[in-house]
Amino acid sequence: MQDTRLIRRTDILRGVRPAAPPPRPGLETFDALESAVRSYCRAFPVVFARARGATLVDEDGHEYIDFFAGAGTLNYGHNPQFLKDRIAEYLAGDGILHGLDMATGAKRDFLERFDRVILRPRGLEYRIQFPGPTGTNAVEAALKLARKATGRRTVAYFANAYHGMSLGALAVTGNASKRRGAGVPLNDTVALPYDGDLGPGIDSLDVFEAMLRNSGSGVELPAAVIVETVQAEGGVKVARAEWLRRLESLCRAHGVLLIVDDIQTGCGRTGSFFSFEEAGITPDLVTLSKSISGIGLPMALVLIRPELDVWNPGEHNGTFRGNNLAFVTAAAVLEYWEHDGLSRAVHEKGEQIRARLQSWADADPSLGGVVRGRGMIRGIAFADPDLASRVSAGAFRRGVIVETAGPRDEVLKLIPPLTISDGQLESGLARIEAALEEAVALVPAGAAAGEAA
Amino acid sequence: MQDTRLIRRTDILRGVRPAAPPPRPGLETFDALESAVRSYCRAFPVVFARARGATLVDEDGHEYIDFFAGAGTLNYGHNPQFLKDRIAEYLAGDGILHGLDMATGAKRDFLERFDRVILRPRGLEYRIQFPGPTGTNAVEAALKLARKATGRRTVAYFANAYHGMSLGALAVTGNASKRRGAGVPLNDTVALPYDGDLGPGIDSLDVFEAMLRNSGSGVELPAAVIVETVQAEGGVKVARAEWLRRLESLCRAHGVLLIVDDIQTGCGRTGSFFSFEEAGITPDLVTLSKSISGIGLPMALVLIRPELDVWNPGEHNGTFRGNNLAFVTAAAVLEYWEHDGLSRAVHEKGEQIRARLQSWADADPSLGGVVRGRGMIRGIAFADPDLASRVSAGAFRRGVIVETAGPRDEVLKLIPPLTISDGQLESGLARIEAALEEAVALVPAGAAAGEAA
Amino acid sequence: MQDTRLIRRTDILRGVRPAAPPPRPGLETFDALESAVRSYCRAFPVVFARARGATLVDEDGHEYIDFFAGAGTLNYGHNPQFLKDRIAEYLAGDGILHGLDMATGAKRDFLERFDRVILRPRGLEYRIQFPGPTGTNAVEAALKLARKATGRRTVAYFANAYHGMSLGALAVTGNASKRRGAGVPLNDTVALPYDGDLGPGIDSLDVFEAMLRNSGSGVELPAAVIVETVQAEGGVKVARAEWLRRLESLCRAHGVLLIVDDIQTGCGRTGSFFSFEEAGITPDLVTLSKSISGIGLPMALVLIRPELDVWNPGEHNGTFRGNNLAFVTAAAVLEYWEHDGLSRAVHEKGEQIRARLQSWADADPSLGGVVRGRGMIRGIAFADPDLASRVSAGAFRRGVIVETAGPRDEVLKLIPPLTISDGQLESGLARIEAALEEAVALVPAGAAAGEAA
Amino acid sequence: MQDTRLIRRTDILRGVRPAAPPPRPGLETFDALESAVRSYCRAFPVVFARARGATLVDEDGHEYIDFFAGAGTLNYGHNPQFLKDRIAEYLAGDGILHGLDMATGAKRDFLERFDRVILRPRGLEYRIQFPGPTGTNAVEAALKLARKATGRRTVAYFANAYHGMSLGALAVTGNASKRRGAGVPLNDTVALPYDGDLGPGIDSLDVFEAMLRNSGSGVELPAAVIVETVQAEGGVKVARAEWLRRLESLCRAHGVLLIVDDIQTGCGRTGSFFSFEEAGITPDLVTLSKSISGIGLPMALVLIRPELDVWNPGEHNGTFRGNNLAFVTAAAVLEYWEHDGLSRAVHEKGEQIRARLQSWADADPSLGGVVRGRGMIRGIAFADPDLASRVSAGAFRRGVIVETAGPRDEVLKLIPPLTISDGQLESGLARIEAALEEAVALVPAGAAAGEAA
Repeated sequence: MQDTRLIRRTDILRGVRPAAPPPRPGLETFDALESAVRSYCRAFPVVFARARGATLVDEDGHEYIDFFAGAGTLNYGHNPQFLKDRIAEYLAGDGILHGLDMATGAKRDFLERFDRVILRPRGLEYRIQFPGPTGTNAVEAALKLARKATGRRTVAYFANAYHGMSLGALAVTGNASKRRGAGVPLNDTVALPYDGDLGPGIDSLDVFEAMLRNSGSGVELPAAVIVETVQAEGGVKVARAEWLRRLESLCRAHGVLLIVDDIQTGCGRTGSFFSFEEAGITPDLVTLSKSISGIGLPMALVLIRPELDVWNPGEHNGTFRGNNLAFVTAAAVLEYWEHDGLSRAVHEKGEQIRARLQSWADADPSLGGVVRGRGMIRGIAFADPDLASRVSAGAFRRGVIVETAGPRDEVLKLIPPLTISDGQLESGLARIEAALEEAVALVPAGAAAGEAA
Repeated sequence: MQDTRLIRRTDILRGVRPAAPPPRPGLETFDALESAVRSYCRAFPVVFARARGATLVDEDGHEYIDFFAGAGTLNYGHNPQFLKDRIAEYLAGDGILHGLDMATGAKRDFLERFDRVILRPRGLEYRIQFPGPTGTNAVEAALKLARKATGRRTVAYFANAYHGMSLGALAVTGNASKRRGAGVPLNDTVALPYDGDLGPGIDSLDVFEAMLRNSGSGVELPAAVIVETVQAEGGVKVARAEWLRRLESLCRAHGVLLIVDDIQTGCGRTGSFFSFEEAGITPDLVTLSKSISGIGLPMALVLIRPELDVWNPGEHNGTFRGNNLAFVTAAAVLEYWEHDGLSRAVHEKGEQIRARLQSWADADPSLGGVVRGRGMIRGIAFADPDLASRVSAGAFRRGVIVETAGPRDEVLKLIPPLTISDGQLESGLARIEAALEEAVALVPAGAAAGEAA
Repeated sequence: MQDTRLIRRTDILRGVRPAAPPPRPGLETFDALESAVRSYCRAFPVVFARARGATLVDEDGHEYIDFFAGAGTLNYGHNPQFLKDRIAEYLAGDGILHGLDMATGAKRDFLERFDRVILRPRGLEYRIQFPGPTGTNAVEAALKLARKATGRRTVAYFANAYHGMSLGALAVTGNASKRRGAGVPLNDTVALPYDGDLGPGIDSLDVFEAMLRNSGSGVELPAAVIVETVQAEGGVKVARAEWLRRLESLCRAHGVLLIVDDIQTGCGRTGSFFSFEEAGITPDLVTLSKSISGIGLPMALVLIRPELDVWNPGEHNGTFRGNNLAFVTAAAVLEYWEHDGLSRAVHEKGEQIRARLQSWADADPSLGGVVRGRGMIRGIAFADPDLASRVSAGAFRRGVIVETAGPRDEVLKLIPPLTISDGQLESGLARIEAALEEAVALVPAGAAAGEAA
Repeated sequence: MQDTRLIRRTDILRGVRPAAPPPRPGLETFDALESAVRSYCRAFPVVFARARGATLVDEDGHEYIDFFAGAGTLNYGHNPQFLKDRIAEYLAGDGILHGLDMATGAKRDFLERFDRVILRPRGLEYRIQFPGPTGTNAVEAALKLARKATGRRTVAYFANAYHGMSLGALAVTGNASKRRGAGVPLNDTVALPYDGDLGPGIDSLDVFEAMLRNSGSGVELPAAVIVETVQAEGGVKVARAEWLRRLESLCRAHGVLLIVDDIQTGCGRTGSFFSFEEAGITPDLVTLSKSISGIGLPMALVLIRPELDVWNPGEHNGTFRGNNLAFVTAAAVLEYWEHDGLSRAVHEKGEQIRARLQSWADADPSLGGVVRGRGMIRGIAFADPDLASRVSAGAFRRGVIVETAGPRDEVLKLIPPLTISDGQLESGLARIEAALEEAVALVPAGAAAGEAA
């Protein structure tokens, strides 16, 4: 039986549209009125009604274990009760919902708590900018500030990086399809190979260092380098700690600012609050979003080394910089970081996931499975670039939401809520394993190799 | 007595920072931890605690009449009870808060209601894109789609336009300070004079037509023109209906798409739901944001003529495209548009504001007051470019929040909630009038002229 | 009988290749070995053997009166004997032919003579740069210097301008086909309407002034404006002296440099040595080439107001900056400018041409003939855009070389050597008149109108 | 005694102007009237009067052996008698000097002879474009054609490449000072490390291959790669034949065009007519200029693989494409290539130069001398970046013209005429050796190291 719901993500981006699926009750409105740009509702074609913790429920009452967590937005799970309580309380008191960037008590509470709970214990001193409530807006603001502070034009980024869809962020994003979507040349940036991209024998930062040292290289001294410590969309590729330290060191030596985009990997995803803590580096600018509000409300931050806070008032503005409802939950959720319980749990569950993925890779070497990741962002890359999509589709049929990543969608990416219970985690992994077994069984190795060509 | 709170907005942008103000209780946190980019909290330096309708209340219990409405985000006022009720109900039922762009009941309700209440009665057929929850994101998406659909690179825009702060939107924004903030050249766009910019004798669209007709003009055929029917940030400048019709006609004749940015002027601000209804034009793409959620939650739309909906799935993605809490209120607030009461009220109150502004201009011709606007977006431009800022500061001391606009902040802009009561409207206008009288009295005409030089 | 040699120039650029012409003895080599980019040899498909004054002779001994003069390169005619004598003498003495930009006696003689004969009598003080021997190189150098001296990025230019084919010069050239040939976006420039482009009622500089005065115009203050006083390739369009003066005045008021590209219209083409003398303006930078060597050898100059000569040594280099053979003839030919005989002759013959063209326009109003030009660069534009090409082809059959110009090749452009004899001038005009009569007779007005659609 | 004539070339470019030199008889005119951009006349501050073979003579009668040859323009020496005879004959017959790109007998003779003597014997089939008479124009044309033929936007080039000074060519030139001179961002190109740039262990083409293979690399598939087989200005750096073959192979595999810029290294400089013959590769496009006319007259070619000759007629035009005097000598000089005498002589003399340079490096290891080059383009790089300039100055005092190269002018570059006699070659090398000894003796090693810091 052919599975009409199987859609390979890369094909979606390339515009290879699947054969028209059989109509599904409840989706007619979306097909009729929503733009063709809609995507996840194609891979997971049901209408979701409610959610709690790691569980999503559709309108027909079917339950799904969430191994995607709003693309990393729901590190603390869906609808934590203590955050919902805070929202209800704030609303009841006619708290400011929208106040542009005027001062509010909700914003003050967040600022103070973030400084006390997150920054100071880590010896970090940053000014906090609310650049608009989305990650791409945070990236745009960070790039603008880096250019202003240095008076330089270009920003370096890495192959397979993902930083957002507005033109500035897109210009530091590697994916060719996304870049083509700009419809204009993306200039003022320079692409570098990421850790490992030149093969095992070569430290890819040699290329960057050669550029920096040679005045005839054709490459201007950049204002900044923007980097993800783990390339999530890029295929759960991890930069080694020593590579990150060499990157910081090259930046310092040449006066280049270091921007860490911690939008998907921050807020505890790798175990520590910031993903760069393990490497011991101190970025000049940090972008945060996704899980920062704790409950999935739009919110984003730029953290700025104080000397670099050269913005003129209002120079980067925007209507939704003050999403006060998000400030309320963002302040409350920080109580998770007043102790080290979450951090330890992430390390433990992360290791559990890694071990399970590795067991799959080991069990069938013909899959060419490569296990990657840190903390609770883990992935397994397959030699057959279609396999991950087939596993995702099979897992969905078994009640698990799990996505693919990588330039060819060849990686199955697991990012459940950090707070997922052991039982749900185990259950989810078991169902994915079953989906993998099914996907492999249905396609003989020879056919898979053929498809991969 | 010198007013240390007086900050001219243009100076803020230029980085002319005011002398350090005396410390104010409650603002220390913001000064210490928030980036220097913060702006409105400087002009209105109190901490706001709660709000209802057109009234804001600070932590000291002082009340303020809101003539700014979240820069046009709160057309229906602060915290409408029926919208708060819907939020509480949705939360209580563990409704999906964040679900990426998966299908949810909340999104379906909004889609259906928007189609039924807004689009169909106006004979409009549009596909709806959720491009991310901010205006700048909607503009970025519209520009990308226009370029993709036409295969062309450039987009035309108008002097003094404001469309957002990310690089794509900034490239179609006129303000020189904002543009410089990009730190890179802003290419792939072409600036045109807006209605009236070449003086009374010249229809500024002659310039555009000459470009389009002359293959040697040096200007490529653009993918689209993006226009505001009223330039809000640009100084409440109104495009005449016949100018808009000629613009549409030129676009049609040359195969250029017409994008109306209705982010600030849509959702009833000018009386009709869309600001372009009066002119009788039908844009190819429309951007909406600000008041679309009804209660100030981040949300944005792109409306797309169906033939132009050539997006590949996921081609413009983003984490917060599915702000379901905003969908809930956005659907509910449309009940305002099931009858014509609000529309009539906007026309009446708008006329009342216009008449009052005109009376000020008439009373003292030396002010050079020019009254502009449509519906409930109204402004008065003064010859002395400092006067509007002084009036804004004086009004704040009298308990009114009112802002300035225009390239030199020379325009006092009045955009109260559309639902403001007659009493609050009258009270607010009276206080602004008092602030104007004070501002004029304190600065002799000669000195003002000197400052303007 | 169909004329297979008729090629409309615009069609050539569009790649509409004519049906394969019958083979012509002598042209096989060019068809086989020279790139498809070759152009004039298609319109004038004979092999030229020798030339003198205004007469070209092909290998079959046929004579042609030259009304094209190497696109303005041969203002003094072909092979003036006194210049040939100087070359022979220089060669016999083993004079330096190529010496990079080392000092030579030949260069010194040119510098001194140009200063004494041209600059000083006109009260002009310029530093002289040898930017490479072609016009496009002179334009590139002038643009680079203007940007360096002002620290600004953009340069303004005019619709239908022609300044050259390398990327910098192309970015200030209006023609759409030429611009497309770049294969990359042409940025860092802004197009303005030329004198008359907005119709008789509007001074097109109003647009430029509005840009300069409005900080919200979206247009950065440019480094410079580059202008031709007569747009030769653009269709012999003449800027009025008062328009040029207002342009200079606007530039001065806003600190924008004024570059006059006098490559085609300088060296006496309009009567005075520089074409801008009549308007009484003093450009900051002037580019010269084409007729500057006097005998058609490659040579170009940039004249630089001394304060702007901020080049670092070698900052704009190039192998052929020192074409010493050209310096020898360029110095010698200046003897024409030691008295006013040539200047007077140009005015007289120019008036004679103008009158003749006007008589054609007057004789048959259905042609819609519009006569344009100054001095000895004259043109007549026809309503039927094919007519000029047909006249050019007919004139060639009658032994006259004359070209077309304008965005649609709708203009017949007459630029004979300034030194042409009265007899040859009269003979040439008579033959062109005959070609015009034939071209009109062969194509009924109706058909012509049809073709023009 | 301090040598006031010592100017380090890199300092010149950086604008570090030397203290005003004592006035020198004969140079006042240049100092007063020529732009500050003049460069070689500063390093060799005499006025040259005449030249023959490898000998230059100044106005005071001093003779200089030319080891610079017009930066590679005079491969056949100054004023070869048989070429002068051809010029004299052509002039006497009133041959066409300037005819735009009309067909002439002189052009036909060149086309036929170049095809017969150069292309056919090497099995090469190219269409020939005359793109304007300078190297930068040839590069501009080649880049435009590569972009047109592929429909792609970017062109890859190599660190330390030099391709010219107009904006298109500058965008593929590595030198930071030259690039800054553009005054605008140089886009639409991507820089790659040249052979050896990443150190001995890494094949720098790994970086290019990684870009080409990874759709997420952020680097678009380029239209072309432009490469010099020997980077002359870049410091006489030689690409290995196997590296060039791998480059060709990568280009072929990915549909990227290969452009060899043979402007300085072609026309026999490396021994074979084209510098790429040794590697056995066949470029898609080749640029030639400098020595192509044989006697130093401005002339340039683009050789185009016939399938790529997609120019529209006139799409890349220019006034001086038809420098007929240069065609005359360019055809005549090809008789050197009818036999293999010159080629053998270049190999022999090249080896003689190499051995001499190596002996200097071997004699004093503290100089860190590294000998580079092929055929008769040879260089020695010194550890002390000032040493090469001091040797050049000392050699000039001893009657030898020799230049420096490399990003810091750290390389002494020897490119005498290919036809130099054994006596002059030996005499020149001896004088340079004396200059080296003096330069080393005058500056103790410690001081030199200090200067280099």
